[in-house]
Amino acid sequence: MNTYRSVQVHRFGTSSPDDIGELEAAIRSGKLDPQGIVAILGKTEGNGCVNDFTRGYTSHVLKHALADWTGRSLEDITRNVALVMSGGTEGGLSPHLLVFEVRDISVDAPAGASLAAGVAMTKAFAPEEIGRMSQVLATEKAVRVAMAQAGIRQASDVHYVQVKCPLLTKQRIAEARSRGQSVSAENTYQSMAYSRGASALGVALALGELSVDQLTDDVICQDASLYSGVASTSAGIELMENQVMVLGNSTEWAGNLAIGHGVMQDGIDTAAVATALEQVQVPMRVGLNDGYRRRIAAVLAKAEPSRSGEIRGRRHIMLDDSDIQGSRHARALVGGVLAGVFGDTQLFVSGGAEHQGPDGGGPVAVIAARA
Amino acid sequence: MNTYRSVQVHRFGTSSPDDIGELEAAIRSGKLDPQGIVAILGKTEGNGCVNDFTRGYTSHVLKHALADWTGRSLEDITRNVALVMSGGTEGGLSPHLLVFEVRDISVDAPAGASLAAGVAMTKAFAPEEIGRMSQVLATEKAVRVAMAQAGIRQASDVHYVQVKCPLLTKQRIAEARSRGQSVSAENTYQSMAYSRGASALGVALALGELSVDQLTDDVICQDASLYSGVASTSAGIELMENQVMVLGNSTEWAGNLAIGHGVMQDGIDTAAVATALEQVQVPMRVGLNDGYRRRIAAVLAKAEPSRSGEIRGRRHIMLDDSDIQGSRHARALVGGVLAGVFGDTQLFVSGGAEHQGPDGGGPVAVIAARA
Amino acid sequence: MNTYRSVQVHRFGTSSPDDIGELEAAIRSGKLDPQGIVAILGKTEGNGCVNDFTRGYTSHVLKHALADWTGRSLEDITRNVALVMSGGTEGGLSPHLLVFEVRDISVDAPAGASLAAGVAMTKAFAPEEIGRMSQVLATEKAVRVAMAQAGIRQASDVHYVQVKCPLLTKQRIAEARSRGQSVSAENTYQSMAYSRGASALGVALALGELSVDQLTDDVICQDASLYSGVASTSAGIELMENQVMVLGNSTEWAGNLAIGHGVMQDGIDTAAVATALEQVQVPMRVGLNDGYRRRIAAVLAKAEPSRSGEIRGRRHIMLDDSDIQGSRHARALVGGVLAGVFGDTQLFVSGGAEHQGPDGGGPVAVIAARA
Amino acid sequence: MNTYRSVQVHRFGTSSPDDIGELEAAIRSGKLDPQGIVAILGKTEGNGCVNDFTRGYTSHVLKHALADWTGRSLEDITRNVALVMSGGTEGGLSPHLLVFEVRDISVDAPAGASLAAGVAMTKAFAPEEIGRMSQVLATEKAVRVAMAQAGIRQASDVHYVQVKCPLLTKQRIAEARSRGQSVSAENTYQSMAYSRGASALGVALALGELSVDQLTDDVICQDASLYSGVASTSAGIELMENQVMVLGNSTEWAGNLAIGHGVMQDGIDTAAVATALEQVQVPMRVGLNDGYRRRIAAVLAKAEPSRSGEIRGRRHIMLDDSDIQGSRHARALVGGVLAGVFGDTQLFVSGGAEHQGPDGGGPVAVIAARA
Repeated sequence: MNTYRSVQVHRFGTSSPDDIGELEAAIRSGKLDPQGIVAILGKTEGNGCVNDFTRGYTSHVLKHALADWTGRSLEDITRNVALVMSGGTEGGLSPHLLVFEVRDISVDAPAGASLAAGVAMTKAFAPEEIGRMSQVLATEKAVRVAMAQAGIRQASDVHYVQVKCPLLTKQRIAEARSRGQSVSAENTYQSMAYSRGASALGVALALGELSVDQLTDDVICQDASLYSGVASTSAGIELMENQVMVLGNSTEWAGNLAIGHGVMQDGIDTAAVATALEQVQVPMRVGLNDGYRRRIAAVLAKAEPSRSGEIRGRRHIMLDDSDIQGSRHARALVGGVLAGVFGDTQLFVSGGAEHQGPDGGGPVAVIAARA
Repeated sequence: MNTYRSVQVHRFGTSSPDDIGELEAAIRSGKLDPQGIVAILGKTEGNGCVNDFTRGYTSHVLKHALADWTGRSLEDITRNVALVMSGGTEGGLSPHLLVFEVRDISVDAPAGASLAAGVAMTKAFAPEEIGRMSQVLATEKAVRVAMAQAGIRQASDVHYVQVKCPLLTKQRIAEARSRGQSVSAENTYQSMAYSRGASALGVALALGELSVDQLTDDVICQDASLYSGVASTSAGIELMENQVMVLGNSTEWAGNLAIGHGVMQDGIDTAAVATALEQVQVPMRVGLNDGYRRRIAAVLAKAEPSRSGEIRGRRHIMLDDSDIQGSRHARALVGGVLAGVFGDTQLFVSGGAEHQGPDGGGPVAVIAARA
Repeated sequence: MNTYRSVQVHRFGTSSPDDIGELEAAIRSGKLDPQGIVAILGKTEGNGCVNDFTRGYTSHVLKHALADWTGRSLEDITRNVALVMSGGTEGGLSPHLLVFEVRDISVDAPAGASLAAGVAMTKAFAPEEIGRMSQVLATEKAVRVAMAQAGIRQASDVHYVQVKCPLLTKQRIAEARSRGQSVSAENTYQSMAYSRGASALGVALALGELSVDQLTDDVICQDASLYSGVASTSAGIELMENQVMVLGNSTEWAGNLAIGHGVMQDGIDTAAVATALEQVQVPMRVGLNDGYRRRIAAVLAKAEPSRSGEIRGRRHIMLDDSDIQGSRHARALVGGVLAGVFGDTQLFVSGGAEHQGPDGGGPVAVIAARA
Repeated sequence: MNTYRSVQVHRFGTSSPDDIGELEAAIRSGKLDPQGIVAILGKTEGNGCVNDFTRGYTSHVLKHALADWTGRSLEDITRNVALVMSGGTEGGLSPHLLVFEVRDISVDAPAGASLAAGVAMTKAFAPEEIGRMSQVLATEKAVRVAMAQAGIRQASDVHYVQVKCPLLTKQRIAEARSRGQSVSAENTYQSMAYSRGASALGVALALGELSVDQLTDDVICQDASLYSGVASTSAGIELMENQVMVLGNSTEWAGNLAIGHGVMQDGIDTAAVATALEQVQVPMRVGLNDGYRRRIAAVLAKAEPSRSGEIRGRRHIMLDDSDIQGSRHARALVGGVLAGVFGDTQLFVSGGAEHQGPDGGGPVAVIAARA
């Protein structure tokens, strides 16, 4: 028997942004060791846009609870556990938490490459670096560190890279200006897009999806043809560095889970889902049957309205609707497409997909147990 | 060669509620004879709720245009062409018009049962009859008349029944009260649900899905276990009778089209879509390929949030959201599920599904050309 | 020199639901003793409807901070500090916290009746009592206790009564049913209205605005002609009793503040504002000048759409709008009316006005410093 | 007795975007001659943003009705009657139509300067001229023509200038590009702002509020310190020229009406309303009494969120709200402020105030009958 690292993925439904009851019950019953939690991804039920406070609310509640459960400080939790809340459960999407726990397990030898996770941080950025090549290159480096930490040798074994990145505030912009520096974006909301975009391009660089000579400050959030097929990036006010979590498959890890992915070319591209499923040995069906459905541990996807205003030549109204933001329509659509395939609505579909997949499309990753 | 009736179904994208450009072009080019139009179903891009004026706007524009094109009066058009506008193109749904044209064609013998359409009207209702057994029974009768007119012998050959029904206004309620009569609902919005519900139960009665002893005034909009699997009903202010259009298959008609249907048990029930597709000889695939997709002439479905607050045990937030109405979430979800299957977003998904399919589910019908 | 109790009212702007920076700064600088805080009323920037989690978020943050600052337990804070968050800052309303602090001050003799505050609790209610006469009568009693505690002798000296009351959940309804009891409302949202309505009627009873023979279970949330002109009630999930805070003027208290009120007969009734201002010796002007404006410590008002669909014979669309809830329109309107008068947008305008003022109107109270 | 021109202003409530019942009744009863209608301004109940189709719907209905009533062609109506629909009746604003009728009346001598109206058109613009100095200068000229036509000699006698201006569409942008021309804005929505802004600057130039050396293409929609205090501009897809209506006072006109205006410095600036009222001899009161209220024929104002995020130092959330557009909040606020003063909610408050008043403020004009 040898000791291997193993990633456990736990999925808990929530009845409100402050509901961590299922997680707490799992910890109490010993199914989950809170000390091993490296990341929590949450779908919360706000609008996913500027005034979505459900993300902060859930983070606040989780942070205090993790400090209680582990005896660690709030600062320690903040630095070492990636809390990535994605707002917006439009259509039929179901609010839930995905908890990634790393633990050691003893096995003779792993059955093959298993789900592996690595985390790394960049340095803290100056405000003028956010949304620019400096952030791209630092992210590239952090992805490589996280891959090494995860024992993932090849870019093709990486299937999902979650990046949490900083944003600009009025104060940060003012501070940069006081030093004679310009910034990538004039307001907070816009800066989130630039930070997400630069972070995604950094992932693409690290994985060889793009080469450095294709990238300059000017292409960021401008040239939608440049993208990563595995990046999922999210901006938050509480940090100034990029926090990177790489998920892939590695023979240095054990356990029952593996991950695959595809790149949806548009919001209804089920062929990309088939690609992802194939990699985790689940046959594509319309509406997975119970047996297969039980093997699915997590589904992670990105959604955005296509700028063309069309999906396969048909007009969509996502960008014309002043009552409901376009990203809300897009999450609802992709959520519906995936729910039809998986027979399940507990899906992590998030918006804000700058340089994360092609215009109107995005990555879709599936974590599944072996048969 | 013999002369048979034939239903042609034309699908036209729209760029706004007053855009009838594609329809007009089809008429000008001779592809479509406006005199043969018996019904136009439209998905318009409003909110599909109380203050959705896109339905009235499109109807207004169509009515004036049809009068121009045919030389008939506005009254004649209103009485003889069913204009059924359904608001709400959430998620990726694409605004469009479905135009049903009846024409005579000459063939040796039909290849089998073909798409058949029949229309009929009830008498005009008194306000106190709306949303009650009187409306149920009158609708039952009208469905039978429409079936006979369409040459459809058996209930099992009926796959979709569109009913346009009246609603109560302040004036109509007052008028009933002045005669000492009570009404089924105290306000306009609520009366729309009752009228839709009673109409759907009338369809169920006509097709033997329910028996008359199961029905009383008290079950209408109360007992969700009673429903039709083929009714699609819609309330409008401009009429006091029920306008019924039955679609089914009949050997008395010719042409290339046929219709099938299934009943979605919940919003993500792709098995029901498979049932519908099977009936029109299209094999179920995740993402139909181009060849099959080209055969699809129309997809018609109903969507509503499940009252349980769950879909297959997962919480949905449709009924908790005070920013976006639940029916909007439901259309987005079902639209996404169907778009994933059909590889197309030009789908007629409508809300307001009282007694039209089980709670949280609804009928889905597919009209397709023969291979 | 004698020692008197005194109510200090502090108003702090917030930049987000978790921003308590101004409050914290005031405590650090010694302007405010956290031990003396008896109530915090907050306007938070959510939608003020079902899925407004900004209320819970702010309460969560305040509760933890108060426990930190005072060394008291979370339970102690919950029971003894009334935290009443009202969501919705539509139009120009500005998110803020109103902190009520009671402290002892030494003066020779008070200049007259000063702002006085009294708090009291009812017993915990059984689910079947919520929204019914039992809650009405218990509230009546609690208001009398709070008045006595505040040293307010006459009902006419009471100008504002804040009640925080419980609501029904699925669990609570099930529990009542398991004992063979019925409940006032079938769902959570509806139960909030019934609880608020019963609480407001209890206030009216205590203050002699209504007599007990006018009240039965059946009039609650049905007969809008029965109301209190000073009640402001708010339902929350975290308690099962009613928490009552009475504000009035009393010679047993000292300090610079006094309170007055008027009852707006509709959403644009500035005459009621004039009545309130007169009682605190501020002359009514359109746009108070700086001198008067500085004297205003707090403005508290209730807003709801009139069920008639009209304001002074003009149609409003508040109840026809499926994109924006009616209560949001109403807060925006009343907020604008009051902002025009006060020249300030930091106003506590809340919705949900069952039996709190006439249909479409509501109480407006002003706390002001003496000239 | 001499013959003078006279402007009659009629105000009609509407129950939906297609309700022109009150207008029709006034025409039938002879109160209003449809041949004399020069302009109809309407507040319709859509969202006032991109997908507000209530504006087009009302225009469509009015155009067909005016053609019927006058026997003139649709083209004639389009060119000669200014139909300006403004969407958005947030807060308590009441949907209504303001009909401007010019007729000849016989009087000995006018009592003083009376309400005067003049209309003029610019040439049709090429797409590349929209939102640029070319549009500014053409508008300046048209305002002067309209003033001359109205017999208004001095700029200070002009109190309201309504401009309807064109916008860019994909087709128009493509056409310009095919000729090697650039355009002011890349998309339709943005082009509306540029067209409104350039038109407002043209008004400012004509009235001497700004001088030509202050203006270049670069300041349009960039420098908010440059504005007109009387312009109200609105973009529509149906025209390529600017349609200008000037309202002011002139001794060449007779009748009972006069107009005044003020410039609100922020959304709650009632002092500006006092200025406007003073000019029409109505004393400022909080809540006009019935006598004064009856004299008010129309109130016209502009509303926009201040970009600073504050009103008099208090934070507003208008620009942070992803559920409700900022311009909707702003209309609700200004509507409430004005409703408090006028005791009436039938107010023409419109959004989209580029270069129309200072940032966060805007013009307010009052048309009133003489005492």
